[in-house]
Amino acid sequence: MSKVTREQIQELLREYQLDHAGHISIEALGRKSARVRFRVGKKHLRPGDTVSGPTLMALADVAMYAALLGEIGLVPLAVTTNLNINFLRRPAQKDVIGEAKLLKVGKQLAVGEVALYSADDPEPVAHVTCTYSIPPTKSRVKC
Amino acid sequence: MSKVTREQIQELLREYQLDHAGHISIEALGRKSARVRFRVGKKHLRPGDTVSGPTLMALADVAMYAALLGEIGLVPLAVTTNLNINFLRRPAQKDVIGEAKLLKVGKQLAVGEVALYSADDPEPVAHVTCTYSIPPTKSRVKC
Amino acid sequence: MSKVTREQIQELLREYQLDHAGHISIEALGRKSARVRFRVGKKHLRPGDTVSGPTLMALADVAMYAALLGEIGLVPLAVTTNLNINFLRRPAQKDVIGEAKLLKVGKQLAVGEVALYSADDPEPVAHVTCTYSIPPTKSRVKC
Amino acid sequence: MSKVTREQIQELLREYQLDHAGHISIEALGRKSARVRFRVGKKHLRPGDTVSGPTLMALADVAMYAALLGEIGLVPLAVTTNLNINFLRRPAQKDVIGEAKLLKVGKQLAVGEVALYSADDPEPVAHVTCTYSIPPTKSRVKC
Repeated sequence: MSKVTREQIQELLREYQLDHAGHISIEALGRKSARVRFRVGKKHLRPGDTVSGPTLMALADVAMYAALLGEIGLVPLAVTTNLNINFLRRPAQKDVIGEAKLLKVGKQLAVGEVALYSADDPEPVAHVTCTYSIPPTKSRVKC
Repeated sequence: MSKVTREQIQELLREYQLDHAGHISIEALGRKSARVRFRVGKKHLRPGDTVSGPTLMALADVAMYAALLGEIGLVPLAVTTNLNINFLRRPAQKDVIGEAKLLKVGKQLAVGEVALYSADDPEPVAHVTCTYSIPPTKSRVKC
Repeated sequence: MSKVTREQIQELLREYQLDHAGHISIEALGRKSARVRFRVGKKHLRPGDTVSGPTLMALADVAMYAALLGEIGLVPLAVTTNLNINFLRRPAQKDVIGEAKLLKVGKQLAVGEVALYSADDPEPVAHVTCTYSIPPTKSRVKC
Repeated sequence: MSKVTREQIQELLREYQLDHAGHISIEALGRKSARVRFRVGKKHLRPGDTVSGPTLMALADVAMYAALLGEIGLVPLAVTTNLNINFLRRPAQKDVIGEAKLLKVGKQLAVGEVALYSADDPEPVAHVTCTYSIPPTKSRVKC
């Protein structure tokens, strides 16, 4: 069972992701995993009607964060420390789906990977690994 | 001497970076290097008045692209294939400066690094390495 | 069907991996995938009887290479251009298994990921993504 | 002033780097920086008389570790959590030099970059960024 609901994460994103929150929905929370959709609008496109790199990175970051919150509960101070993205294929002018999977959840660090897909297309458009730093329990209690 | 002017890159960005173009200025083009400024606005901030991760990644990508165009000329089809970012410090609510340096410019691939700074602060807020795929000369001629 | 046999890759490794070839076996070649075992010896250990980082990186590199050769055939000139590794858990003093999966095989670049496990342990000890540059067909013919 | 001497690090490496210790020398320790030489032997080469990838990664890891120990003192439990390497040029059959520079030394994490050069060649053969996890002070005292 996830320690948070999709609605709680959605609510946290509204506070955090000022720019994109309206475009992102948490579609599923699983065991150490999450599926997140980015509803692509005109401003997320590039010439050739492809989705911009920063949009993909923003989605990957949120998908990892959602998977992490599902595992450790609402910890607003967790921060991304490293993100590595490989761009694989030109995304179509469609929504993008991020499938995040946690590889490790330690006391200080969580590591995961995210595969990004154009909606209804089985081949990934990008692959991301990222690391989150988890604040010590004491500071968490303060939150 | 750079093969392009700052104005030419700025013009190309306007076509490409639909979302951020108005916030980015190419401040300097050097030998295999570029300095780019991101004028941070309200929508680029996160709670605590820090600059968002996707904003930093977008800036790094543009700074590398500018350094590359300065070296190989206007090649619109070059695409980022890999970007790795380490977030080092919380950026201040200030403009962010990206200092890009090319490490290699091959026939197929260019690799560079970008150090990102809050304006007037000597300690980097993030460090990026990224790889660009350069299209074969034949397709370049077509552009 | 794989374009090469496990024996052919094993033979190529003997020529290439002067140092480790005797410790590596290609256990399986699948569709865009490979499973490779590193028989850990005394010289691959660190204090605390854990396996050294360079050993894990060497295994990941070979596993990706095996998966790639299975897909494109024997192409000796392919070279690693980028490797990103996240160390997740302390490996046990046991053989290490690398499960490689290709994410993209393009004309110039191939990208894949490799999960590394201590033998008989379901939790990964490390996760790797890496990129190979594939030589143009003309140079391939020469090989 | 560095918190440790080159000899102390060299001593620690002998305990740790069972395989390569005899090939590595700490040439300089500076403010948040270190220069390390790998004396390349036959077993570190690949066909074409180039230096193997795992050798370069091992050197980068040691160079970062030396720079870190120079900054925080002898902390044997620090472990690499992430390493990202871009291979830029074919190294010559020569010693390889690693120039490490720390980008951040926090309480939990240290991040740095390492440029690798063939001896007497100004163009880098590879570029590495890596992250070290620093154990909490309590465990450090125990060491």
